Parts: sequence; C-alpha cells; structure tokens
Amino acid sequence: MKIHSWWRLPAACIVLPALLAAGEGKWTPRQVLELNEAELHKQGLQIPVARMWNAEKGTGLLAATVNIGGCSAGFVSPNGLILTNHHCLFGLVQEHSRPDRDLITKGFLARTPEEELPGKTTRVTVPRKFTDVTKAVEAAVPPAADDMARNRAIDAKQKALVSECEKRPGARCRVAAFDGGLQYVLIESFELSDVRLVYAPPRAIGEFGGEVDNWMWPRHTGDFSMARAYLNGKPYHPEFYFPISTGGVKPGDFVMVLGYPGRTMRSLTANEMGDMRDFYFKLRAEVYGEWIRILEEASKGNAAGTIAVASTLKSLNNVAKNAQGQLAGLRRGQIIEKQTAADQRVMAWAGKRPEFAAAVAAKKELDQLAAQKRTTAVRDFLLQSISNGPLALRHATQLVRLAEERTRPDMERDVDYMDRELPRLRDRMERDQKSFFAPADQALLSSWFARMKATGQSPVAEFPAVDALYASTRVTDAAERLKMFTETAEQLKARRDPMLDLAFALDPALRALQQGTRKNEGAVARLRPAWRRAVIAEAGKPVAPDANSTLRVSFAHVKGYVPRDAVTYGPQTTLAGMLEKHTGEEPFAVPPAVLDAAARVDPKKVPLNFLADADTTGGNSGSPTVNGRGELVGLNFDRVWENVANDFGYNPEVARNVNVDIRFFLWLLKDVEKADGLLAELAAAKPHAATAKPAAAKAAGAAH
Amino acid sequence: MKIHSWWRLPAACIVLPALLAAGEGKWTPRQVLELNEAELHKQGLQIPVARMWNAEKGTGLLAATVNIGGCSAGFVSPNGLILTNHHCLFGLVQEHSRPDRDLITKGFLARTPEEELPGKTTRVTVPRKFTDVTKAVEAAVPPAADDMARNRAIDAKQKALVSECEKRPGARCRVAAFDGGLQYVLIESFELSDVRLVYAPPRAIGEFGGEVDNWMWPRHTGDFSMARAYLNGKPYHPEFYFPISTGGVKPGDFVMVLGYPGRTMRSLTANEMGDMRDFYFKLRAEVYGEWIRILEEASKGNAAGTIAVASTLKSLNNVAKNAQGQLAGLRRGQIIEKQTAADQRVMAWAGKRPEFAAAVAAKKELDQLAAQKRTTAVRDFLLQSISNGPLALRHATQLVRLAEERTRPDMERDVDYMDRELPRLRDRMERDQKSFFAPADQALLSSWFARMKATGQSPVAEFPAVDALYASTRVTDAAERLKMFTETAEQLKARRDPMLDLAFALDPALRALQQGTRKNEGAVARLRPAWRRAVIAEAGKPVAPDANSTLRVSFAHVKGYVPRDAVTYGPQTTLAGMLEKHTGEEPFAVPPAVLDAAARVDPKKVPLNFLADADTTGGNSGSPTVNGRGELVGLNFDRVWENVANDFGYNPEVARNVNVDIRFFLWLLKDVEKADGLLAELAAAKPHAATAKPAAAKAAGAAH
Repeated sequence: MKIHSWWRLPAACIVLPALLAAGEGKWTPRQVLELNEAELHKQGLQIPVARMWNAEKGTGLLAATVNIGGCSAGFVSPNGLILTNHHCLFGLVQEHSRPDRDLITKGFLARTPEEELPGKTTRVTVPRKFTDVTKAVEAAVPPAADDMARNRAIDAKQKALVSECEKRPGARCRVAAFDGGLQYVLIESFELSDVRLVYAPPRAIGEFGGEVDNWMWPRHTGDFSMARAYLNGKPYHPEFYFPISTGGVKPGDFVMVLGYPGRTMRSLTANEMGDMRDFYFKLRAEVYGEWIRILEEASKGNAAGTIAVASTLKSLNNVAKNAQGQLAGLRRGQIIEKQTAADQRVMAWAGKRPEFAAAVAAKKELDQLAAQKRTTAVRDFLLQSISNGPLALRHATQLVRLAEERTRPDMERDVDYMDRELPRLRDRMERDQKSFFAPADQALLSSWFARMKATGQSPVAEFPAVDALYASTRVTDAAERLKMFTETAEQLKARRDPMLDLAFALDPALRALQQGTRKNEGAVARLRPAWRRAVIAEAGKPVAPDANSTLRVSFAHVKGYVPRDAVTYGPQTTLAGMLEKHTGEEPFAVPPAVLDAAARVDPKKVPLNFLADADTTGGNSGSPTVNGRGELVGLNFDRVWENVANDFGYNPEVARNVNVDIRFFLWLLKDVEKADGLLAELAAAKPHAATAKPAAAKAAGAAH
Repeated sequence: MKIHSWWRLPAACIVLPALLAAGEGKWTPRQVLELNEAELHKQGLQIPVARMWNAEKGTGLLAATVNIGGCSAGFVSPNGLILTNHHCLFGLVQEHSRPDRDLITKGFLARTPEEELPGKTTRVTVPRKFTDVTKAVEAAVPPAADDMARNRAIDAKQKALVSECEKRPGARCRVAAFDGGLQYVLIESFELSDVRLVYAPPRAIGEFGGEVDNWMWPRHTGDFSMARAYLNGKPYHPEFYFPISTGGVKPGDFVMVLGYPGRTMRSLTANEMGDMRDFYFKLRAEVYGEWIRILEEASKGNAAGTIAVASTLKSLNNVAKNAQGQLAGLRRGQIIEKQTAADQRVMAWAGKRPEFAAAVAAKKELDQLAAQKRTTAVRDFLLQSISNGPLALRHATQLVRLAEERTRPDMERDVDYMDRELPRLRDRMERDQKSFFAPADQALLSSWFARMKATGQSPVAEFPAVDALYASTRVTDAAERLKMFTETAEQLKARRDPMLDLAFALDPALRALQQGTRKNEGAVARLRPAWRRAVIAEAGKPVAPDANSTLRVSFAHVKGYVPRDAVTYGPQTTLAGMLEKHTGEEPFAVPPAVLDAAARVDPKKVPLNFLADADTTGGNSGSPTVNGRGELVGLNFDRVWENVANDFGYNPEVARNVNVDIRFFLWLLKDVEKADGLLAELAAAKPHAATAKPAAAKAAGAAH
C-alpha cells in the first residue's frame, strides 16, 4: 500500500462532516478546494468553493489576501486600497512622524491620493501560484546523504527553485516545507513595493488598551490602518478585493479568516512539545521577564532612556506574556498530556501494521534527538537570545558572522547573510541606534554573562568586565558600526575592539549551534514525514498542516466563551466599553475627537471588536475576516489569553480570535474623520459594480 | 406640622411596593416590623414578619444573629454552635497555633467538646433590647449649649445610659446614633465571654485567593469557621438558631443577610462625600500605597522582617485596595454627581416649604463646616494616620495621651482611655511587638515626616533625624513600653526619650484635632437631623439609616451581574473553579486532602460561593445569609469590587455581596474532615425538632 497524506488524495475520496463543526484547521488553498462543499455551505459559506481559489489561474478570494511585512492584509477596493492592522503599518506611520508632525499620536488621513505617504520598506506580496515540489526536493538529496548533507541538499535545492522562480518580473518566491518535510511547495507571489499610507487612527485608538489589554478579552482596540498599493506610479488594480459589509455580524454568524499564520507546533510529538515548554517558553518567561525588569529599572527617570528602550520593552513584554500564556494554556488544556496519549495511540496502531514500521522507528529516533538536545538546552537558548538581548553583543556577533559569510559565494551563505538580505540588515543596524541606551544594554549583558556562566557550559571561560567593554567598544557607535559592516574579519580583528573580540570568541559556539540545528533539521526532515504519515492515516480524517507563514483559511463562527468558573464572555464589544475603560491616561485615553463623536451616538450601538472560533496564530495579524458572501466584516488582530497555547492544539472551548469590527472603522471614518471621499471609494467597491464588468477587477466572492 | 422621620411612623401609614424590588436598605429591626408584609412575602419571605423580631421579648430570627469581635455571626444549633467567617475567628486560631502545632496552616477540628479550644478575648454579644432614647439624649443638652458643649453633653448622657444599662448581669450596652443624631437608640446585648473554637479550615481554604482575589468576583473562598458559646461552663442554649439548609440556592432565590454593618456614608451631603473622596480615600490610596511599597522594600529578603510586617501589610493592602475601589466606584456610579442633584432637589423642595426652613439653613451650615475642614484636611489626615503608621510613634503618642487622660476621673476621659479599655490597649501594646521591624518602622516615619513637612502646617517645626530617634528611644522595647504604660507625664518626660518628646510635641495638635472633631460632631448632631428630616420627607418613602454597627436586615436575591462590556458574571461558583485557580502556590494552593476529596466528586456539582444583591458593608462579615424560611444557606464575607462605593449609594446594577455557600462547608466536613459528629449535631438542629418542643430552643423562623 502506498501512503498518501490526506491532502494529496483526490477530492472525491473525502467526506468530512464532523471536522468542520469546530473551527479547527488552518487549511491550505488546495485543501479548501478538496473539502466537502455541501458541509461548508451548511456551515454558512454562501459562495461556491471554486470562487475561493483557482489554482490554475491564481485567482479568487484568496488572491485578495496579501502579505504585508509578515502580517496579513486584504484588498478592499479595485484601486489598490489595502486594510490591515494598525500595528502592521506602524513602521510606515513612524517613518513620516516628526516632533512637529506627530502622526503616531495624531493619526493620519490622506484626503486625496496626493497626500498619501509612500513607504521606504513596506512591501506587499500577492499570492499567485503554489507548486508541489516535494519530489524535486527529495530527489535532490543524494542517496547516501547523512543528516547534515540532507539538510544542505534540501537547502540548496530550495534556493535554486527560488532563484529560478524569482526571474519572473515582480516575483517573490519561497519554498515552504509542510510538517517538517511531508510536503514542499514552491510559492510564487507578486511583489508590490510602492505602498502608501492612506489612513491610520491615533495610536490611542489603534493601540487602545496597550500592554494591559494585549491578549485579553474584552478588547476595545481600533487596530486597523489603510494603505494603497501602486504599480508603476498608478494605483494597483487587484484581480480580486473584499467589498466591505455594512451589515456586520451577530453571534453564531459564519466567518472565514484568511491570512498567513506564522508558526504552530501541532505536528510535534509530546516529547518535543514538553521540551518547548521546559526549555523555550519557561526560559522565555524567566529570562525575558528579568530583562523587562532590568530595562525598566535602568531607564527609570531618564526620558531619553525610556524612549530608547520602549520598543525593545514592547517586544520583550509581548514575547514574555505570550510565553506565560503558552505555559498556562498548555497546563489548562492539558495539551501535552493529551498529545502523549495521542502519540501512544498512534504508536500502538502503527506497531500492528508492518507498512508503518518506518513510523515507529522515526518516532523513536525523534525521541532520541529530543533527549540529545535537552543536554545543552539552556546554553543554546542563551546563545539564541543574543538576538533579543544586549544590542552591542547582537551587533558584534552579526558583524563577525557577516565578515565570514561574505567570503563565500552568495548561494553558499547562511540565508540571513545572502546578498538579498544585506540591505535590510544594514538598515536595521542603523535604525537600532534609536533603541540603544548604554546603561540598559550593559545591565542586560551583565545578566546574560551571569546566566551563561551558571550553565557551566559557557563557550567563553571568563567574561570581560561589562563596564570596561562598553567604555572601549565602538560597536555602539552607529557610524562606526556601519563602517564595520563592510570590513573583513581581519580588519575587525585589527580593531582590537573588546566587543568584537568577544563576538569572535562566541562565534564558533554560535556556528556549532547552527550546524547542530541544521543537522537536526536534516534528521527531522527524514523522520517527521514518516511519523506524520502514520498520524494522519490513524486519524482517518483530514489534518491541516502546521502553520508555516503560507496562505491559509480558517472557517469559524462568531462566538463568546466561558473563560473560567462563573464568568461568561460575550463575543461583541462596543464603543460603550471603550468609554468605560477611558481614564484619560495611556493606554486608556480616548482622544477628544472620538469622545465628542461618541457623545452624539448611543455608544452601545457602535460595535468595536468581536470574537470568533477561528484557528489563528501570529502572522494572522491583519487577516481579512469575511462573511459567507466573501464580504469583509472585520480584521483579525489577536487571540484571547486562554487560547495562546492553541499553537500546540485547538481547544474548541476557548479557541477564540479577536477581530476589530469593520463597523467601528466605518464609524470612525464617518463620524470622527468625516472622510467622505474614502468612504465613497469603499462604498463604490460593491459586488454588483464589480460583477457588471467581469473583465475588470472583481469583487472577491461576489455571489450574485 | 410635626416632622416625623419615616421609621417612627406607625406601620399602617406605610405602603412601599417599589422599594423592595431592589436589595437597597439595611433595615433596623423596628423598620423590618413596619415594612409591607405582603410585599415581603411576594419577594420570597416565607415566614411571618413577626417571627423576625419580637421587640418586647427580644426574640425571633434576629436574636440568633450575634456580634463577634466586630463581625457578624449566627447560632446554628441549640447547643451554642456559631458560624462566622474564617477571618473573624482567625485570632482564636492564632492564639492556639505554635510552630509544632500550626493550626493556621492545617486548620482545626474538635471531634469532641473536650477538644474545643477556649479563646482569651473572643466575645459574643446576643441582641436583647433596643430602646429609643432620642428624647433623653436631646433633653440632656443645655438650651444655650454651643457645639462643643452639645457634644460633651450628648457624650456624657450616652455614657450614663450605658453605665446604667450594664448593671444588668452579662449586659453589654451602647447608645447608637442614627444618621448623625436623627435618632438615638440604647442597645442592650447579652455578652458571652466563653467562646471555644470548634472548626477552622486550613488557611489555604479559609483565605483561598488571598489578596489577589480579595474584593474580586468570581471567588472561591471557604471563609468560614465555627465556635461554640458556653455559659457557666455549659454549652449555651440560644433562644433561636438558624437550621442549616441542605437545599442550597439557585439564581433568583430570595435571601436575607442579617448582621452588623459597620459604617456607611449615604446620609452625607454631596459636599461631604466629595471631601471623603478627596481627603480620605485619595489620601488613603496614595499614602498607604506608598507605605505598602516601603514595608515591602524594607523587609525584602529578610525572613523575620517579612513575618513582622505581614499583618500591617495585610491591613494596609486591604485599606488601600478598598480606597481604590471606593474611588473607582464613586466615579463609575457617578455617585457624587447624583448626590449633588439629589441635594439640589431637596433644597429646592425645602425652600418652598417654610416648615423646612431649618433644613435649608442646616444644609448651608453643613457646607460651611465642610469648607472649613478642608483647609487643614491633609494635615489632619496625617495626624490620624499615626494609628496606622510607624509603631514607635503610635505607641509614643498613646503613652503620652494615656498619662494625661489617667489624671482625670474615668467618666471624663476620652472613651479610648477609659478604665474598661485599658487592658485591651495594654494587650495591643504588648502584641504589637510581633509586628515591629525597625528598618520598616524607620522608613515609614521618614515618609510621615516628609509628608507632614510638605503640608506647611506641621505642628512641629523641625523633625529630629530618624536614625538618631530609633537609636535612642526605648519605646520600641516591649518590656520598657509596658513600664511606660503606668507612668505619669512627668515620669515620661524625665526619661528624655526623643520619641516620647516628639509625642509630647505632637500631643497638643492631636488633642486640638480631636477637640475640633468633637465640636464638629456637636454641630453635625445639631444640623444633620434637621437636614435629614427634609431628605426623608421629600423622598416620601422609607429610607434606611446609615450603617452604624447595629443589627440590620437586608432583603435580597441570588443574582449575577454585568461588570463591564461583554462580560457576564454568574452568581454561583463551584469547586471546579477552585481547582482551576489551583497553582500549588499561595494564595492558590488547594490542600492535598481537599484535592483528594475533589477527585472523588464532580467538582462542578460542589457549590462554593454565591452572589446576592444584598445591601452590605464592612461588619457584615460572617453575616448569616438565610432563605425565605429562615434557614442558613450561606455566610456573607465580601462585596464585589464594583460595589465598594456602595457605602455612598446603592447601585442595583452592581450591588452584589459575596457569600460562601453552606453546601461547601457541609462538603468539607463530610468528604474531607469526616466530621460525622458535628454533622449529626447540625443535622439534628432541624425546624421540626425545634417546633415540636416550643418551650425549648426554637429553630429560628421555622415556618412549619
């Protein structure tokens, strides 16, 4: 018997009634086409599934779902208007903010196309083509390859495929591995690099609730911004776009969340999940928790310092809070316990079937690999944490590594140091200066030294004194650092800069760690597919692959939940709740213009955020949330706290994503901004208008 | 026309249908008898109102409602068993705890009467008689008395009435003023001083959730303990007791909360309320908030210090959190704004009626008094805060004051320094040593000095150096302090102790403040009744007086609430929620024995806490919560956060009290403690048994 993963089977073989009752599953475009259409219509889909995606032509609803700097977004007009989250376009707003023109605080609205603000680095990719290249990738691995050679061969083949693909003008390509190598898909997108800011609300609306409310329901955040894509200086005309629904949603309504979920870990074994918990999330919560306190203390009372560390703090807070949520969710949902039982069930099932002997062996070897990694897990975490830690050390290690990588041909380099990435790396090194605050950086490095020492596995026997390091290093000087960016290893060594010297001392360990990781990936690429084939065969029903930043669809319903004993959360919040939270102080300061407008309406009748049981993760930020007719009803922007461990397993009781209700966006534009022009453009983008001209831009999913 | 306050009118005059729909009103025993009985039965009362209280005989349901050290409690068996909150009997548990017998942590159960643990200071008072003495008190004020003389005369008359009343054996008496002198009632109670601990759960149950959950719904706290009252060495046989209901409650059920609510401020004018907000709660939140941080920092890393400051910290935390809640509640309920409107309405109403001219004048003078107090409000708050602040200064000021008070005849002394109070004061001075931790105390005093200086109204021009003060004072030495307890002012002065010298320097200001307060009280006693008569007449319906630690009844229903947008709180929690919160770490560490027992049941079926819309405040701790038949269904132990400002006004949307469900108590006794004897005694205390022997102890409210 030949083993197929479920999603390679022809559609006719598949019947999946129970599956869709819950929102579980981030389905690939291809899987969507293979799902039971009648069942989807029963759930609430009102358009033919074929309208979702035409794999041949690369058109359909999903073609309106774009990627914008790691976020998801959707076209909402035939003239290239794009809606995404406020935090996804924040960089663009920041780019144009000056002390005398504080767009971050005040927000921005372009009343004419001329006023739109171009972004230097904002790019949008529109999905075009998905090609299964599994056979080609597997064929590239030499028969006798060990795990390292396997990894290198797969890597090289992927690079070659991407390079070939990107020869098409405007094409941006990647090869995505699904579930550690069960399938490889070459994804071709069309890149638009002229993206201009059209509208951003004041930060007090776009980030209402700030860190306090982050991950927490009930939310009252206007987390949206709007841009317009241009091609050759003219507004871009997308093939498909989402007309905006003014009808809104109500509890129980069917919705779909479309986007680019980043990374989930559901295909891991229970042992691997346990290690994620113990050596990743626990360490993140602990180490980054300490760093947060360090940054806060070091910058306390210092205005410049406070500003400098703000963005690092924000990101550490986000990561640490996420880690805590993962830990709590894993415990609450008993996810690892359940996975253990599931693994045992599959092992028993496979043990009885000779055709799955490879799966049993693979699972055992995966367990051994995990045990091996565990022995240096804390040290390895600390080495990796350099990229989130003291800037001076981060830059020094990057400079040292760059100098070495640059001696090799482009195709043989580490992917982060290939020519195509260097401009971005240089930009970041320049921009980072804004985040540098010496006392905070020093305190972080002290903590890092102490923790590394405590592992007893430090690659450097004796760390230099932190004070002296910062007193004499030039890595912390932006201009000097950019000079170093082009220097060779010899030139860097000749500088006798103690921070660079430290980076040189750490470099072998960092490289060894990366080599080890690659070797491990090679092994996993060999083992995971065998194991997953058994898992999927045992399940006897479709299984969506782990998220990997590729385009996915989640089918869901608007729904509240019971977070804990005696507490019920409704699925919809309103402007009244925002006013309730308003204290006048950040992060709960509703801007005066919004307060004024709110005083003229019944705030309970202005919807703000809503929940659905969609299956989302990071990367789904800005995802269009559309109704059964393919009309935009909201934008996904968060998950609830109880649902953070969703990355390891879907728990229907608490799996809820948070969407900003598009009716709040419309209310703001109308009652606060008086943005009649923009509203007219959006109102004109109606299904009927689009369908009248089939050759022109089509409103995505127009069913009538 | 002669003006009557509503509750002096004969019952026949009164029809009050709308009033009782909500739970508003802490009704006095007399008011309960005058309420519309048919309406009460419609609400859910199933016994005749006459069974609630027989004013002549001092019997009925309310006779089973006792006061235990400032808490409320209820008799639950004919053999003197008393149920109240865990925190109300905490002192008794503490008294018998030793390092080798840690009753606080482990809890305690007396399996036989011999094992019951007697308390040194625990006293129970049983209500016996309420006598209106308004005329006698008013007659004691000389016609031409100024406010100070009025206060002194009222004070003296009250003392005389109490002294006369306490001549009866076992009698404990007080004169309670209602609404600042609208009515004076002599309350005679019967004091039982032999009270023995029968059952206390482990602290981890009795205080489950600790400071984190304090004031917060949903709660999962087993806040109950049980004692037995003895008289002449035999179990006391109360006239009435509450049989325990095993039927429990469900949403919508009628309940009554009986007890001794401490203090509310609803009879204040809006101006007075505003000053409470600005110069009481805001200062408490700010000053005590700072002191909490000071105590935490000063004791960090010092085990002895941490233990020493624990109880002070707990009480400051409680007070500061309460203050924050009051501030938030006042804002949220717009209580002062509403009171302003109500005051204006009454002023307009009274202004048109010549017979209420005195009310209009009284309101104006109350406003003037408030304006006057405002000028020194911060300084006065700081002087009063000495009683919550640095122990050394507190003790020193008490010793100095005591030495001076003792030179006067007992009846002329400040009430806190009368002979009957001195043993308690001495006990406290001894006990306080446990809470003394020099570094913390010094840091508090530094803060106090700095704040006092900043007022620009300090009674002491230059404060001594704190270090030097503590280095040479002997007030902080317990043995020396107790010697000082009996010394004269001259002896204290001769000691040349700088802390005592500071107390002598502060004493005139402290006395002046007290004199000012008394003068103010005299004025209020003259003005408030006049104003309140207008308020009550304008209302045209019954108005319950402010709480004043006297026996009250609140009629209520089991009910959840909507704390904020998109959130609904159900009224009932269960053991499942306790397990949900269980982390294994304080304050969320469910003891192993409870975890074991919980594993043998469906925890969702073990009720734990419930909400009702009863009108309660501090002092209601331990209040019996009984059903319409007078059977005990729970014990009140808290209010919800949104309801803290309830002291200023009842908001039916969020006015919820928190009760521990008696079914949790029964489950613990049965499944965890296997306390069959105690359960049998409680089960025997049934209405039918009591009613069968009418001459013997009667089960309170037995309707069949």
